[in-house]
Amino acid sequence: MVYLLGDLAKYVGCKLKGDPQIKIDRVCTLYDGKAGGITFLANRKYARYLETTRASAVILRPSDALSCPVAALIHDNPYVCYARVAGYISRSDNDTIAAGEIHPSAVVDDSSKVGEGVILEANVVIGANVSIGNNSRIGPSCVISDDVVIGENVNLHSSVTIYKQCVLGCNVLVHAGTVIGSDGFGIAQDGEKWVKVPQLGRVIIGDNVEIGASTTIDRGAIEDTIIGDGVKLDNQIQIGHNVRIGEHTAIAGCTGIAGSAEIGCRCTIGGMGLILGHLKIADDVHLTAQSMVTKSVETAGVYSSGTPLQTNATWKRSFARFTQLDDIAKRLKKLEQKFDQVKQDNKVGN
Amino acid sequence: MVYLLGDLAKYVGCKLKGDPQIKIDRVCTLYDGKAGGITFLANRKYARYLETTRASAVILRPSDALSCPVAALIHDNPYVCYARVAGYISRSDNDTIAAGEIHPSAVVDDSSKVGEGVILEANVVIGANVSIGNNSRIGPSCVISDDVVIGENVNLHSSVTIYKQCVLGCNVLVHAGTVIGSDGFGIAQDGEKWVKVPQLGRVIIGDNVEIGASTTIDRGAIEDTIIGDGVKLDNQIQIGHNVRIGEHTAIAGCTGIAGSAEIGCRCTIGGMGLILGHLKIADDVHLTAQSMVTKSVETAGVYSSGTPLQTNATWKRSFARFTQLDDIAKRLKKLEQKFDQVKQDNKVGN
Amino acid sequence: MVYLLGDLAKYVGCKLKGDPQIKIDRVCTLYDGKAGGITFLANRKYARYLETTRASAVILRPSDALSCPVAALIHDNPYVCYARVAGYISRSDNDTIAAGEIHPSAVVDDSSKVGEGVILEANVVIGANVSIGNNSRIGPSCVISDDVVIGENVNLHSSVTIYKQCVLGCNVLVHAGTVIGSDGFGIAQDGEKWVKVPQLGRVIIGDNVEIGASTTIDRGAIEDTIIGDGVKLDNQIQIGHNVRIGEHTAIAGCTGIAGSAEIGCRCTIGGMGLILGHLKIADDVHLTAQSMVTKSVETAGVYSSGTPLQTNATWKRSFARFTQLDDIAKRLKKLEQKFDQVKQDNKVGN
Repeated sequence: MVYLLGDLAKYVGCKLKGDPQIKIDRVCTLYDGKAGGITFLANRKYARYLETTRASAVILRPSDALSCPVAALIHDNPYVCYARVAGYISRSDNDTIAAGEIHPSAVVDDSSKVGEGVILEANVVIGANVSIGNNSRIGPSCVISDDVVIGENVNLHSSVTIYKQCVLGCNVLVHAGTVIGSDGFGIAQDGEKWVKVPQLGRVIIGDNVEIGASTTIDRGAIEDTIIGDGVKLDNQIQIGHNVRIGEHTAIAGCTGIAGSAEIGCRCTIGGMGLILGHLKIADDVHLTAQSMVTKSVETAGVYSSGTPLQTNATWKRSFARFTQLDDIAKRLKKLEQKFDQVKQDNKVGN
Repeated sequence: MVYLLGDLAKYVGCKLKGDPQIKIDRVCTLYDGKAGGITFLANRKYARYLETTRASAVILRPSDALSCPVAALIHDNPYVCYARVAGYISRSDNDTIAAGEIHPSAVVDDSSKVGEGVILEANVVIGANVSIGNNSRIGPSCVISDDVVIGENVNLHSSVTIYKQCVLGCNVLVHAGTVIGSDGFGIAQDGEKWVKVPQLGRVIIGDNVEIGASTTIDRGAIEDTIIGDGVKLDNQIQIGHNVRIGEHTAIAGCTGIAGSAEIGCRCTIGGMGLILGHLKIADDVHLTAQSMVTKSVETAGVYSSGTPLQTNATWKRSFARFTQLDDIAKRLKKLEQKFDQVKQDNKVGN
Repeated sequence: MVYLLGDLAKYVGCKLKGDPQIKIDRVCTLYDGKAGGITFLANRKYARYLETTRASAVILRPSDALSCPVAALIHDNPYVCYARVAGYISRSDNDTIAAGEIHPSAVVDDSSKVGEGVILEANVVIGANVSIGNNSRIGPSCVISDDVVIGENVNLHSSVTIYKQCVLGCNVLVHAGTVIGSDGFGIAQDGEKWVKVPQLGRVIIGDNVEIGASTTIDRGAIEDTIIGDGVKLDNQIQIGHNVRIGEHTAIAGCTGIAGSAEIGCRCTIGGMGLILGHLKIADDVHLTAQSMVTKSVETAGVYSSGTPLQTNATWKRSFARFTQLDDIAKRLKKLEQKFDQVKQDNKVGN
């Protein structure tokens, strides 16, 4: 598909600098642009590539428009504009079967309701009393258990499992291999043995949520695990039972959130973060990568934990000294006191 | 289903305070109780919710019975009692197809033996010479490879893969997407290339084991990887080849256990723990979250590693100072020595 | 199958000490050897098991040959030789169906090309315009989306998902549940909401790559994510969009590599490593377990981060003191200066 630059400018509401008849047929990078390609400049770090770009058009801020050697779409938030343009250009880039098709190998219980335009791909399994909203697509080998409710325009990639009774809102995108509604890790100690605590809550996922590949979200123990509207979850994330995640929070890959933690709205959590159970994270908290949260965070802001990379030889020394930290602090305190005492004695002595 | 409180008390062996005719039809939380609901009080932190609970009955310790405004089941271990009551109440909450059914889409090799009452759900694939014990259930899209042995009352949720020759005991529960018996990470360096070391052992899983979603357990290189009876594994755990985990050990999500590590009995490992290869962890060791174990732990007890969350601004300073720890310790030592020398000189001087 | 030791020696090019007629039918460990078993001694730590081994033959270095009480295959790299012998012995240990079979339940789009000797197991789903090279095997319930190219002798275990347009080289082995080509975590902030950035690149995987179970590799945002020839990836690894991994790099389980990171050749990354986005790691860099890399590593070598395991009681003190590190360093500096001042004053005073 080929698009006119002028049409793209109108579609995303950008000011256009240059010829509206320029033909765009792809996205490209700024430093490795191609004729017919559209790209963007958002991060100042890449500004040096602007003057030599071979892209046909660049989406950029008003302040960069003058130094742009090719056509430009001008907007205060070029990355968001790029996202919209790229989405528009690639929207026809569909998956195998046409809307409304149900593959003959799909196994669907008679009691379930499938909306209009729904695609059920090969080897899908749908249990009893399931409801799937209009224009949703269930990818190959997905398993949707009994009593699940799925909204409209939902897209589940392949081999996604939704356990019974879970609820997904509208415009939810779930990547391959993700599991929603597995049992929380509820075990009660009885002598040296563990007794399983039945996990009887559900997972409730809001609208406009995206969930990456091989992420797991456990059902609640009694009440529900709740993922708010607009939440974005990356791959390989583990979310424990009864967790609540506020609207528009974004969580990077490999993060673990233990049971009953409550994350606020508009938070960002860096890769491999760990939030312990029963904690509360306020709205607008931002955690850098590999942060471990061991108590509630009550104030918005940026927080971190972890230690820096060193050569193995020097790290071994830091590593060993870490265990001596309390001793070091106490000895320093003592030395300060002795020093003050000596100075005072000297003064007295004088 | 509705249950009489008196019957539940008898079922779990609790003393009953209140009317045995009270009708119970659900579990609920203490702070958000509902008529017909039964809940529990185990953690002192939640005691303040007791006096205003709207639950119809609470499972609690003898010491809390007096202050309970509603009916009570009294027991020294209320959480275990709750687990049993909840299990009893929810036991009829079955999955789609009835016991003993084999879905027509299941692919089962003729040489395999399927016990009585076994459920094989849609799109199950069973290889050659597999044995599945009575009353086990293999969920949709599970793949059971050749020569696997599965005990009685095993429940595999959807899309579980069991590689060839692995053995699962009785009453094993495995959640969706989990992989048992994949190759261990065995590679031998030959110049700049890696040569694959065939992984010829198995995974042997004991009785009463629960394994979460998207967990991976590698087969042994020569001998077997062994998961003891009663072990409980959460989601997204990675267990390397030749690992041995002792009975009744419980491991929280996102933990990694490297090859040939040996974990004792009755251990607990917090979320995102990491245990390096070839180490031995004694019985009754408890690791807090994100602990990294770099040498064997020979004594029972509670162990930890990691650094605290700070605001990003203050963390940056701690982060930088961490690399100076050895220098700080040495300078402190030197200063102590100089100080002692000066004091001695002064004394001598006096 | 039974093999003659002399034939094995020839196959791997080892010098033989002992009777070439000895029959070998299995591999075994050094400390728990069995008649008919062949094993190896590579790690000095295990040398003490040599003199009492019950194996029929041991692969070892020339320097260990004299002290070997049984037959020996002698080579400078015994572990690589063992890998080859074990591979030879276990090569007939095939999976269920014979080469060239396509299971009747496989769903294959007519436009796709399947090479000679290809095995498509039960419930495989192959989209449009896919190409699969000769002698490759696609395991049960794998999903291969449109326009994917797979080389020769590739082996995908069960429930692997390959998203559209991705490319796998020859001799690639992928374990169960792994996802290749899912969307990268590209989101653009628009006020308090996130706008999805379409992920339009591919994943390109070289030859002789092995990928473990439940690993996820995201497609590029605009350009491709690239995994070089001979790369070995363990289980539960997350690789973000646009990442490039150089040839013969090996990465242990649970590691996360954020978007646009570039890893050199012949690197090794220990378990649960974390490399932040847009960083560059030089060739021949080795990271120990749980290392967090927050800036580029420009020089080959061994690097580490993290803190040691302590008893919980002593760790609590180190943990608290960590936040005081900057204060401790400053107070030490001040005390050093005051001390020098006093000494000078004393001298002056003297």
